Amino acid sequence: MQRVNAVLSGLGNIGSRFVGVLDRKREIIQSKYGLDVRLVAVADVGGAALDEDGLDLAHLAGLKGRSVAESVGKPGVSILQVLDAVKADIFFEATPVNLQTGEPGLSAIRAALRRRMHVVTPNKGPLALAYGELRDLARENGVQLRHSGAVFGGLPTVNIGQRDLVGATILRIEAQANLANSYILDKMGGGMVYREAVQAAQAQGCCAPDESLDVEGWDAVIKLVILANSVLGMDARIDDVAREGITHLTPDAVARVRAVGRVLKYVAMAEHQADGTYHLSVAPRELAPSHPLAALGPLSMGVVYTSDLYGTISAAITEEEPTPSASSLLRDMISIYS
Amino acid sequence: MQRVNAVLSGLGNIGSRFVGVLDRKREIIQSKYGLDVRLVAVADVGGAALDEDGLDLAHLAGLKGRSVAESVGKPGVSILQVLDAVKADIFFEATPVNLQTGEPGLSAIRAALRRRMHVVTPNKGPLALAYGELRDLARENGVQLRHSGAVFGGLPTVNIGQRDLVGATILRIEAQANLANSYILDKMGGGMVYREAVQAAQAQGCCAPDESLDVEGWDAVIKLVILANSVLGMDARIDDVAREGITHLTPDAVARVRAVGRVLKYVAMAEHQADGTYHLSVAPRELAPSHPLAALGPLSMGVVYTSDLYGTISAAITEEEPTPSASSLLRDMISIYS
Repeated sequence: MQRVNAVLSGLGNIGSRFVGVLDRKREIIQSKYGLDVRLVAVADVGGAALDEDGLDLAHLAGLKGRSVAESVGKPGVSILQVLDAVKADIFFEATPVNLQTGEPGLSAIRAALRRRMHVVTPNKGPLALAYGELRDLARENGVQLRHSGAVFGGLPTVNIGQRDLVGATILRIEAQANLANSYILDKMGGGMVYREAVQAAQAQGCCAPDESLDVEGWDAVIKLVILANSVLGMDARIDDVAREGITHLTPDAVARVRAVGRVLKYVAMAEHQADGTYHLSVAPRELAPSHPLAALGPLSMGVVYTSDLYGTISAAITEEEPTPSASSLLRDMISIYS
Repeated sequence: MQRVNAVLSGLGNIGSRFVGVLDRKREIIQSKYGLDVRLVAVADVGGAALDEDGLDLAHLAGLKGRSVAESVGKPGVSILQVLDAVKADIFFEATPVNLQTGEPGLSAIRAALRRRMHVVTPNKGPLALAYGELRDLARENGVQLRHSGAVFGGLPTVNIGQRDLVGATILRIEAQANLANSYILDKMGGGMVYREAVQAAQAQGCCAPDESLDVEGWDAVIKLVILANSVLGMDARIDDVAREGITHLTPDAVARVRAVGRVLKYVAMAEHQADGTYHLSVAPRELAPSHPLAALGPLSMGVVYTSDLYGTISAAITEEEPTPSASSLLRDMISIYS
C-alpha cells in the first residue's frame, strides 16, 4: 500500500464532491489501486485546515458551502501558506475559473509543481493562460500535470487523444464543447428568438448569468486551446483560435438550416494542415445529420477524432450534475500512480 | 531506445495491415515511444519466415494474400515451431476467428505466454473460449495479454472501461456490437423482408456468407463475454449470456417500433444486479431516440457505459476498412511498454 498525501484547494461544486468521492471510494482505491490517500490539507476562501494524519473526509464533504475555517480549520490561512507548510505528494486545484489572471489557481499550481508535487486540476483558467509554462515546470520537477476534467468534465477526452490514438496523425478534432451554445441553438431551432433562448439556457442552469463567455465563444476557445496543447502537442494561445459567436444568429437562419435537413451545432475544431500545423476555430456549423455530433443532445458534451489510423472515433458524456467532473480528479490521480 | 522483438501469426486483413502500419509508423514509434520494433518472425497458413535482425516490413505488407513461404519464408513451418525457435518479447496473434476450437490462435497464445512473451490479439476465438485461463497464464508468467481489437475493432472500448472509469461501479454497459444485425434491422425498418435484408448485408460486406453467427446473436455474445471478462472482471462464458437473435422479426414488427418514434437496435448489455453480479444479454431492443446508441449509423460500433461516478459515457467508431482494427495492435503494444 502506497501512502499518498494530498492537498486540495477549493471546496465548491467540484472540490466538495471530489472529497465525497474519495470518502465513498476509499476501499476500492486501497484494494484495487494500492493507494492510501490522505487529505493532509484543504484550503478554501475562508481559510485552511491541516492534519498530517488525514482530515475527516465525510466532514469536509458535508460543509455545504461553509468554510473549513468555521470548524476544523483556521481563518485567513492561504493555499500558498499551506503548500509551504505541508509535505505532500499531490495537489488538487479546484478553485473557480478566472480567465483574466488564472488566480488563485495559477500561483498555487506553480508553487506545488516547484515543490515537486503532482498537480491535478479541472481549472481551465491557469491551463488556458499558461499551459506551456506549467507543462515545462512539471517536466523540470519530474512530476505530472493532469487536467482531464478541464476538457468536457468526466469525458476522457484527453486520454482518448493521448493514449488511444497511438502512432496516429490526428487529422481533425471536432467537439461540442459548450453546453450553453448547444442549448441556445437547439431552442432557436424550435422557434425562440436569441434573447429568449439565452434566458432559457440560464434558467436551465447551463449558461452563466453573464452569458458573454459562452455566446461569444470564449469558453469553447479555452477548451480548444487546452485540448490542442495537451493532445496535439501545440503551444496554442487564445489568440490563435478563429472565433465566431452566436449572437448574430436569427431564428430564421437557424430554421433554414433545419429545413434543409442539416443540424446547426456550435463546434470547436482543429484541422490538420498540409504543413503539419493545425487550424483552430470555434463557430456555429451546419452538420450533416449523420455527423457524430449532430445527434448529441443539447446537454451533452462530445468530441470526434478523425485520424489516419483509427478511422472516426467519437465520444460523448451526459453529466446531470458535477460528480463526473469531480471524479475526473480521482481518474487523474490513479493514472499518475499507475 | 528499447529493442522489441516481435512475432506475428497471420497475414490476413488484420495482420498484413498491421505490418504496413508498423512500417509506415516506424519513425514515430521510435521517436515518440522509444521503441525499436523488429518483426523477427512471421507465420501464415503456408509457412514462416524468420530473421533475427527484423524482416522487411514493406515486403510483407505487399504480399496480398501470397504466403511468406513463396518468397522470404519456408513452407510448412508452423507458428508453434516458430515460437519454439525464436527469442522474442511480444507475440501478435491475428489468425482467423475459430469459435469451435479457438485454433490455431489458442495454442499459439498459450505457447507464447509460457515463453514469457506479451501477447496482443484481436482474435475473438481464444478469448471467448479461454479468457480466464489465458489471463491467469499471463499473470503467472509476468507478462501482459491485450486484446483491444477484439471488442469493436479500433474503438478503445476496453481501455475506456478499464482505465477511464477509475473507482466507479459500472451500472450498465450497452453496445451496438454487431454490424450485420444493425444493418439488417435498418433495412427491415425501410421495408425489406428479413431474407432480402440479410442479402443486402452480405452484399454490403458486413455480414458473412453464412449469416448464422450474426443473426442468431453469437457474434455479439462473444464480444460481450470478452468485454465482461476484461472490464467487469468476470469469468463469464458464452452460456452465461441470454441470447435472442433477429431471425423471428417481421418487417411489420420493425415498422411498428419505428411508427411510435422508437429505434430498434441489436444491443449487447451487461446490467449490474443488486447482489453485485451482472446480467448479460444480447437481443433486439427498442430504444428511445435520445439513447446514445439510437443515433448510431448501421455501420458503426458503439458502447455506452453508465456508472455511479462518471455519468453516461458513450463512444463509437466508424471503420470503413480494417486499418483501425489493425492499428489496435500498435495501440496495445505501446500501452504494454509505456
